[in-house]
Amino acid sequence: MTPVETGVAAAEPWSRAEFEERLRDVVRQRYHDRHPFNVRMHEGALSPEEVRRWITNRFHYQRHIPVKDALITAKLDTSELRRTWARRLEDQDGRAPGEGGIERWLRLGEAAGLDRSGLLAGRQVLPGVRFAVDAYVNFCRHRPVLDAVAASLTELSAPDLMRVRTEAFERHYPWVRSGGLAYFRDRVHQGRRDSDEALSLVLDSARDRAGQERAVAAVAFKCEVLWSLLDAVDQASPEQVR
Amino acid sequence: MTPVETGVAAAEPWSRAEFEERLRDVVRQRYHDRHPFNVRMHEGALSPEEVRRWITNRFHYQRHIPVKDALITAKLDTSELRRTWARRLEDQDGRAPGEGGIERWLRLGEAAGLDRSGLLAGRQVLPGVRFAVDAYVNFCRHRPVLDAVAASLTELSAPDLMRVRTEAFERHYPWVRSGGLAYFRDRVHQGRRDSDEALSLVLDSARDRAGQERAVAAVAFKCEVLWSLLDAVDQASPEQVR
Repeated sequence: MTPVETGVAAAEPWSRAEFEERLRDVVRQRYHDRHPFNVRMHEGALSPEEVRRWITNRFHYQRHIPVKDALITAKLDTSELRRTWARRLEDQDGRAPGEGGIERWLRLGEAAGLDRSGLLAGRQVLPGVRFAVDAYVNFCRHRPVLDAVAASLTELSAPDLMRVRTEAFERHYPWVRSGGLAYFRDRVHQGRRDSDEALSLVLDSARDRAGQERAVAAVAFKCEVLWSLLDAVDQASPEQVR
Repeated sequence: MTPVETGVAAAEPWSRAEFEERLRDVVRQRYHDRHPFNVRMHEGALSPEEVRRWITNRFHYQRHIPVKDALITAKLDTSELRRTWARRLEDQDGRAPGEGGIERWLRLGEAAGLDRSGLLAGRQVLPGVRFAVDAYVNFCRHRPVLDAVAASLTELSAPDLMRVRTEAFERHYPWVRSGGLAYFRDRVHQGRRDSDEALSLVLDSARDRAGQERAVAAVAFKCEVLWSLLDAVDQASPEQVR
């Protein structure tokens, strides 16, 4: 994505269809389902210790999702848009105690033999994971709303990933109690609804080529965040020769 | 509120009761119910044009309430706290189209003969009102969560104000259709519930004297925001000699 060069006329905006295709292309090519650690996870090659390390570190990401969504909500300037986005807060934090995605992730941890208080304390979270999550939250805090919303479009591939992951866990990691997989199952439909809404918002909001390019760059950035998180988890494995 | 001086031992924290009394004292003494413009409003002395100017300018404040509440939500670090605070977003933006405090404020405007699209365009908003609202939103954006939550404690006096205001409008401004007063009526119980929650959070969170003093200063700041808003609306009146 090269920015418009000095002295060159501003590029024409892509058509809506081409813009959407470019957004989807980034996700297809750079989503973390291709990361070696994720490939090993879904093939059933992770040790219990690796599964637990992934759950612990990914929880650090999960618990910051409502934070970035509240920051995005603060940037939306109509009740209608905020109402739509604030439903994501509810999805993660629940309407009542014991509900919500964060609670379901804690139960996944417990189903894998991890301690709830240890997950909440977060002492096992790797530096690279903290940095990647900080980068994402600060991106949503400081960038224009278009960029922040576009970054969420990795959700375009989330439902497929969640379905594959649920099957992989049921097949390869039966020691993780099946009730713990509710997070993955619930995200299949939530992810589809969320990505449909965000995609419409991005397609409607990026009015010129510069905005379209920023949106594509935002999705690429988000893919880097997710990839970097898995890099850190992968690096921590003692068996680095694979 | 003097900060702890160099070379002087840190002051002892106030007792919970004394801290609460100091917070309430600031609101009692500096809340905008005492502002000359508000006094004139409740006495029935405003012209229709002044009532409309107040509604238009106060709407600029109203529409930023969910923005500051989303920023506060992003600073709260448990699902339980965010869930409680996010209910304020719902109160203002509604669960569905046509609901919520912002919509009710637009209906108040319409009941007073103002045009909805004009209110939304905001071209009649005075510079002093914009600055005061920006100051409040940025306070909630940049300050620690304790300060941002404490600033909301002007709500301690809001239910009384709303009750008096509803009666004043029914008595003195019968040309404002009564159905338009739903915002004031709904805020009586919402304001009480919100201020109870925020007060508990502030009393629990300010662990030392410095934190307690910051909380008291935050309420004073918020009183200044509301006062300054009325100053700007008042200054715009042609009849400045009263």
